[in-house]
Amino acid sequence: MYTQIHIGAAFPSTNIVFASTTRISKSPKMATSYSAYQKLLSVGTKIVAVGRNYAAHAKELGNAVPKEPVLFMKPTTSYLENGGKIEVPEPLEALDHEVELAVVIGRRARDVPEATAMDYIGGYALALDMTAREIQSTAKSAGLPWTVAKGQDTFTPISSVIPTAMLPNPHDVELWLKVLFIPYH
Amino acid sequence: MYTQIHIGAAFPSTNIVFASTTRISKSPKMATSYSAYQKLLSVGTKIVAVGRNYAAHAKELGNAVPKEPVLFMKPTTSYLENGGKIEVPEPLEALDHEVELAVVIGRRARDVPEATAMDYIGGYALALDMTAREIQSTAKSAGLPWTVAKGQDTFTPISSVIPTAMLPNPHDVELWLKVLFIPYH
Repeated sequence: MYTQIHIGAAFPSTNIVFASTTRISKSPKMATSYSAYQKLLSVGTKIVAVGRNYAAHAKELGNAVPKEPVLFMKPTTSYLENGGKIEVPEPLEALDHEVELAVVIGRRARDVPEATAMDYIGGYALALDMTAREIQSTAKSAGLPWTVAKGQDTFTPISSVIPTAMLPNPHDVELWLKVLFIPYH
Repeated sequence: MYTQIHIGAAFPSTNIVFASTTRISKSPKMATSYSAYQKLLSVGTKIVAVGRNYAAHAKELGNAVPKEPVLFMKPTTSYLENGGKIEVPEPLEALDHEVELAVVIGRRARDVPEATAMDYIGGYALALDMTAREIQSTAKSAGLPWTVAKGQDTFTPISSVIPTAMLPNPHDVELWLKVLFIPYH
């Protein structure tokens, strides 16, 4: 059974055991770079995530849209290669997912002016940001970090790397996701 | 001008421009491993920090001592090698520091039982956890991540790696720190 969802949508609680991120990575027009993918997985050292940048999703969760970007980190050990199985840590029965356009930073950068920012992009990927929402809610209430809610193994499924030439306008791309779920029992 | 402080103590606001973590790394009995240090700096992929594990410090900041460990991440780009200069990001005028015993995880580990946990330790180091406390306080109040307050470049000064054989009992070691500060002007 497949259900199509759109970016930023929170999926009803269920036991997600597989998620595929397809559209871009499987399009024949979108040749992907296997070596760049391997490099991302093997030498990448951090995942910097931006929260509350989708106004509709912020509203859905009852959050104020912030004036400054909300940044958080996920460890690279949370990467899950294409086709892998997302694990739901016990005693949880479900996770939330959000599909994201991942921007692969191709070289070391610091204090980069906006005008040259795009020069540092080595490619793109489709990613899922999995969240143990119950753990995150408890952390938020207590003013504590989101690390345990966001950083566990398999919590960042990631597609192959899409070369920048294949995605000249990253602001105009449709991202979508099919979720195969098996009812929890 | 030097001031000696002890682990977990918050230093009065001042403009810290240099901090050395000495005692262990410079003791003649404590030969350090340069190759392990280089490996830590070059291939390490995450820094997992434990918060509120010092009861006295939690109380000092008015925090409840949690029942479960509070975990947060710092990026490896925040490492600062011995002798380096800690940067205070504008418009801040001061940072808080806490001296820490860093435990270097020497090999990949997951779901490790407590009984064999020590087998994964590849060494120790002295580290400073620098915090932009004003940014962290704002984040805490809003239920947001601590990443910007904790993760900036130079926010994790770290000593050479101390082999485990040199520190057979990590629960019985004195950590201290001398801070050289130049009054803000």
